[in-house]
Amino acid sequence: VTETLDPRIAARLRRDRDGLIAAVVRAHDTGEVLMLAWMDDVALHRTLLTGRATYWSRSRSRHWVKGETSGHHQYVRSVALDCDGDAVLVSVAQAGPACHTGAHTCFHNDLPLGGEAGTGGAGASPGPGALPGSGDPFRADRR
Amino acid sequence: VTETLDPRIAARLRRDRDGLIAAVVRAHDTGEVLMLAWMDDVALHRTLLTGRATYWSRSRSRHWVKGETSGHHQYVRSVALDCDGDAVLVSVAQAGPACHTGAHTCFHNDLPLGGEAGTGGAGASPGPGALPGSGDPFRADRR
Repeated sequence: VTETLDPRIAARLRRDRDGLIAAVVRAHDTGEVLMLAWMDDVALHRTLLTGRATYWSRSRSRHWVKGETSGHHQYVRSVALDCDGDAVLVSVAQAGPACHTGAHTCFHNDLPLGGEAGTGGAGASPGPGALPGSGDPFRADRR
Repeated sequence: VTETLDPRIAARLRRDRDGLIAAVVRAHDTGEVLMLAWMDDVALHRTLLTGRATYWSRSRSRHWVKGETSGHHQYVRSVALDCDGDAVLVSVAQAGPACHTGAHTCFHNDLPLGGEAGTGGAGASPGPGALPGSGDPFRADRR
């Protein structure tokens, strides 16, 4: 078992200044987008090798295996690199909720379209007072 | 029409060192993941205000409206911020193929699971010679 990412894959990655690519995680069966996480070369290597989704935490500056504390593991079914090498699409069988908040997915805060109320847009704007989720406590760094 | 992103939204973003968040783009009807792009505050503001998906190009260091050269616009149906503010999920009506290569989506390069052939893994590895897409020309920075 090799300790490092296949150099032919590594050569195709286009990392950000912190050496990371984006990992879009979807449910392999429904196709639903569950979350977005980050991977360095080691995280991608471990994900491919072990079949357990492994990421780099930008807030904690360490690797983490999804579910290591919550038990909500992600069993990897496939990983696809995108055309310009800065993102992978990870298809998983998700145990439990994907989000650390307990929500089914991490994308549960809709943003208003059409600009602020009364200043233009398509009339679909719910206005500033209706920003969904604005009253929710905003917890960072805990997933 | 305001020129800047709603400060209540801006306050919830957790940007990388280049001031960017990830934008996961999916087809609003099928849910299929089409591509991954990047947004700064201005790109997010314009996307919400105009309903045309607008991104920041890391390679060209400028904003771009998806489809401005290809005609393959993305008409935004909804935008959702994730739990920790570093990514949005943009649901779009996609005109034409999403990928600059002409492919339906940008995620068309499957990576092998299970490590290199003969060194472990679940036996599902196709081996080094079978790395999908390894023979394809790798075009960066053109989407």
